[in-house]
Amino acid sequence: MLEAVDLTAKMDKAESKAILERLDLEISQLQRDLQPDGYPVLVVFEGWDAAGKGSVLNRLLQPLDPRGYKVHNMQKPTEEERMRPALWRFWLTAPGRGTIAIYNHSWYRQVVDERVEDGVSEGGLRQAFERIRTFERQLEDDGAVVVKFFFHISRKEQAKRFKRMAKDPAFAWKVGKGERRRHKLYEEYYNAAEDMLRETSTAYAPWTIVPATDERFAQVKVAETLCAALKKALARGDARASTSIVQPPRRTSPLDRADLSAKLDKNEYEEALPRLQEEIRRLQHRCYFQRLPVVIVYEGWDASGKGGNIRRLTRGLDPRGYEVVPTAAPHGEEKRRHYLWRFWRALPKAGHFVIFDRSWYGRVLVERVEGFAKPDEWERAYREINEYEQQLVEFGTVLVKFYLHISKDEQLQRFKEREAQPHKRWKLTDEDWRNREKWEDYWDPVSDMIEHTSTPHAPWIIIEGNDKRYARVKTLETMTERLSAALKAAE
Amino acid sequence: MLEAVDLTAKMDKAESKAILERLDLEISQLQRDLQPDGYPVLVVFEGWDAAGKGSVLNRLLQPLDPRGYKVHNMQKPTEEERMRPALWRFWLTAPGRGTIAIYNHSWYRQVVDERVEDGVSEGGLRQAFERIRTFERQLEDDGAVVVKFFFHISRKEQAKRFKRMAKDPAFAWKVGKGERRRHKLYEEYYNAAEDMLRETSTAYAPWTIVPATDERFAQVKVAETLCAALKKALARGDARASTSIVQPPRRTSPLDRADLSAKLDKNEYEEALPRLQEEIRRLQHRCYFQRLPVVIVYEGWDASGKGGNIRRLTRGLDPRGYEVVPTAAPHGEEKRRHYLWRFWRALPKAGHFVIFDRSWYGRVLVERVEGFAKPDEWERAYREINEYEQQLVEFGTVLVKFYLHISKDEQLQRFKEREAQPHKRWKLTDEDWRNREKWEDYWDPVSDMIEHTSTPHAPWIIIEGNDKRYARVKTLETMTERLSAALKAAE
Repeated sequence: MLEAVDLTAKMDKAESKAILERLDLEISQLQRDLQPDGYPVLVVFEGWDAAGKGSVLNRLLQPLDPRGYKVHNMQKPTEEERMRPALWRFWLTAPGRGTIAIYNHSWYRQVVDERVEDGVSEGGLRQAFERIRTFERQLEDDGAVVVKFFFHISRKEQAKRFKRMAKDPAFAWKVGKGERRRHKLYEEYYNAAEDMLRETSTAYAPWTIVPATDERFAQVKVAETLCAALKKALARGDARASTSIVQPPRRTSPLDRADLSAKLDKNEYEEALPRLQEEIRRLQHRCYFQRLPVVIVYEGWDASGKGGNIRRLTRGLDPRGYEVVPTAAPHGEEKRRHYLWRFWRALPKAGHFVIFDRSWYGRVLVERVEGFAKPDEWERAYREINEYEQQLVEFGTVLVKFYLHISKDEQLQRFKEREAQPHKRWKLTDEDWRNREKWEDYWDPVSDMIEHTSTPHAPWIIIEGNDKRYARVKTLETMTERLSAALKAAE
Repeated sequence: MLEAVDLTAKMDKAESKAILERLDLEISQLQRDLQPDGYPVLVVFEGWDAAGKGSVLNRLLQPLDPRGYKVHNMQKPTEEERMRPALWRFWLTAPGRGTIAIYNHSWYRQVVDERVEDGVSEGGLRQAFERIRTFERQLEDDGAVVVKFFFHISRKEQAKRFKRMAKDPAFAWKVGKGERRRHKLYEEYYNAAEDMLRETSTAYAPWTIVPATDERFAQVKVAETLCAALKKALARGDARASTSIVQPPRRTSPLDRADLSAKLDKNEYEEALPRLQEEIRRLQHRCYFQRLPVVIVYEGWDASGKGGNIRRLTRGLDPRGYEVVPTAAPHGEEKRRHYLWRFWRALPKAGHFVIFDRSWYGRVLVERVEGFAKPDEWERAYREINEYEQQLVEFGTVLVKFYLHISKDEQLQRFKEREAQPHKRWKLTDEDWRNREKWEDYWDPVSDMIEHTSTPHAPWIIIEGNDKRYARVKTLETMTERLSAALKAAE
C-alpha cells in the first residue's frame, strides 16, 4: 500500500491555514458533543522516525480540551510490563467513554520494531496480528472509534531530515543509534510495515497512510480524517460507532504521477514487440513446467486500449495455456452469489494463465459509482479483495494488475474517432458516453482502489496509455520481468 | 469445548418423534419462505467417523424440497483441485441466494485430517484458520447463514460402533484402514478438533457441538438448531442475515453430570487439608521462581461456599504473592470502559497469583440474566472471553476455573441457616432471595458458559459443592495437580 502513496503531495500555507482553522472549530465541537457518555476514541500515530508525527500531533491537539484526551508515548515494554501478556499495557490505557486516547507508537511496535530487531517466527507473527485484530475488534464492538495513521516518508527524505537535525544542537539528540540503525534497515522496516498495513487494515479499524514529506499536507490529512471519523461516529447516534473507511476530500491520487506524455516511436515499437512476445511465449512454457498459475488483471478507463493491449499480449501465447475472461455485469447464477464467486471460479489451474478484462475491482469501481453496492459493501471490499489476492499469492500465483490510464481529452478524442470510423462504431455505446460524463465520478474510486489494494505481492501497475505503443510495450515488459522473477523465486 | 459435552444425552422415541414432526413442518415452511431471493444457507457436518452424520443428515433432509438444496460430499482434494488455492473448490460450491448447501465434510478437513495426517507448521495452521474465518466472514457479510455441526462421540463409543459395523456385511466396508487409523489417533484428532472449534467459533459462524451417542438426541439437536438459525435469519427481514448464536431449547447441561451426593468425612478432610495447603505453598514458591503467573477463577451459585473455599486455598499461601479480587457490579471508571478492561488491569505479573471471586463471566451470567448486556453483546462475549483467556495461556499463565455447584434445595437450606444465625445474616441480602428465585433463569446461562468456554487450556472444573469439605479438598487437589503439571511443562 505504501508504494501507491504520493510522497510529493504538498499544500501551500494559505490553503492549509484556512482548512485547519475550519477543522479546529469542527473538531473542538465534536469533542464537546462527545462528552460524557459518548464513545471512546483511540488515535494511533505510527510511521518512520523523523516523519513529523510529533509536530502534526501537536497541531492536532490545539483545538482539543485537554481534560478530554490523554497522549500515551509507548516505549518498549518495561521489565514490569514484560511480566504480563503483550497487550496488557495497552488495555490499561484504553480510554473511557467520551474520552480520547492518542498513541505515539502503540501495539504495532511488536509487529514492526520488535519483528525487525529481534526476529519472530512465522507462527508468532501471525499470532501477534491476530491478537491485534482481536484487540481492536473487541474495542470497536464495544463502541470505540479506532483511527490509525501511518506517517510515510522516503528513505532519502529521512536521510535529509536526519542530516538537518544532526546539525542543530536542539535536535541532534533525536538522531541516535536506534534511528540510524532503523534508517539503515529501511527496507526491512518497509516490508514489515506493509505486512502490518495489510494484516490489520480492517473495516472496523482501517489505516490511513499519511504522505508526510510536506508537513502542512500531513496536518490537513490527519485533521480531516479524524474529523470525518468523529462525525461519522456521532451521526450513528447510538452507542455503537463505526469508523468504517472514512473519506475526507481526496487531495492527491496515484494517477497524478503518471506521465501521460510517455511515447514510443514506431521503429522502437516494431523492434520491441516481437522480441517481447517471443520472450513471453518462452516464459509461459517455463511457468507451465514449474506449475506456476498466472493471473493478469486489466482495468482502465473506457477506450484506454485494454482490448488491443490484451491481444498484443496473447498473440505470442500458446492458446492451450491461457484464457481471457471478459467481465460484464453479473447475470444469472452470478447475481445470486457473492461477488467474488465468479472470480474464484475462473481461477487458472497451476501452470495456466488467466487474463481478466475487467475484474473483481468492479465492486469498488462501477458498483460504487452506480450505487449497485452500498457504502458498507464497497468499503468492506478493499479488505475482501486483499484477502482474496493474498490467498492467490500464498498459493504461488503470479498476480499482475494493470491499470490503463489515459487523459480525459485522449478519451474524448478516441470516442470521436470511433464515431467517425464505421467499423469501430459498434464499440461506442450510449453507455460509453454516459460513463464519459462520469469521468470525474470515477477519479476518486480509481485512486482509492489503487491506494487500498496495492500490496507488495500484488501492486498495481499504472500503464500510461495515451500512446498505445508505449502502453503495449510497457505491459509486455512488465510481464516478462514479473514472470522471470517468479520463476527464479520458484526454482 | 468437547469435554464439557454431555455424551450420555438421550431422548426417548415418542418425544423425539413428536418434536421432529413439528420441526419438519417448520423447516419445510422456512425453506419455502426462503425462495427465491432469500439468503444462502451453508450447513456443515463435521465430526468423528461413525458418529452418525449420514443418518442424521438423511433425517434432516426429509422435509426439504430437493430442488432447493444440494449435498456436497467433500473428499480429499483431487489432483485438479490441488492446482488451485485451498478454498477454491469450496467457493465453487457456495450456494446461491435462496438455496441451501450441505457439506458432509468441508473446508475443515485441512485443519483436522490433513493436520494430523500430514503435519503442518504453526504458521501454516494459523494461516489456514485465518483463511477459514475470512471465507465464512465474507459469505456472512454478504447475507449467508452458516450453521456448523460437530458430531461428538467418545473413543469407546466409536470402537463399539466399528465392531458392530464390521460384523454386518452391509456396513463392514465402511470401517477401512483410514477409519482404524483415525480411531487409533483419537487423541490427536481430539486436540485438533478442539483447536478448530476454538479458532473458528465466531459470532458470524458459531459451531454447535452435537452429542451423538444417542441418534434421536442428535437428530433433534440438529433440526432445532437449523430451524432456529433459519427463523432468526428470516426475522431480520433484510438481505443481511445473521446467525449469531442460536439458542434452541437446552436439553442437557454439563451440570447434570455433577454428582452432588459426593462427600468427605471429617477425618479424611482434616488429614487432607493441611497436607494440600502445605503442598500448595511449596508450589507457589516454585511458581514464583519459575515466573509462572497464576489466575484462579471462582464462579458458582449464591451460597455455594466460594468465600470459605477461597480462604482454605489462601491460608497456606505467602501473602506477598497473591491477591484476591472480588468482582462486584462495575462502577466509576469501569463502567466507562470495555467490560474486560478491569480484568486486564487485575492480571498478576509473572510469578504471582490472582484469585477472582466472580469474574469476567459476569458478562454471560448476571448481565445476560438481568438484561444489562444485550443479546448480541453476551453472545459475542463467549468468543471474546476465549480470546482473552487464550492470550493469558499463550503468555504462560496457569488458568484454573472453578464452578461451585450446589443443588437448589441445598441453596435454600443455606439461606435459611443464614437467616437463623445472626452472625451470618449480613450475608443474606434481599438480592439473594431475588436471585434465588432466578435459579431457573441461571441454569441455561451457566450451562452455556461451561460449554462455550471450556477449552483444553482453560477447562471449567465443576466442584460438587453440597458438601463443603468435599468441595474444598477437590479444589485444593485440582490446584496442586494443575500447578505441578504447569511447572513440569515449564521446566
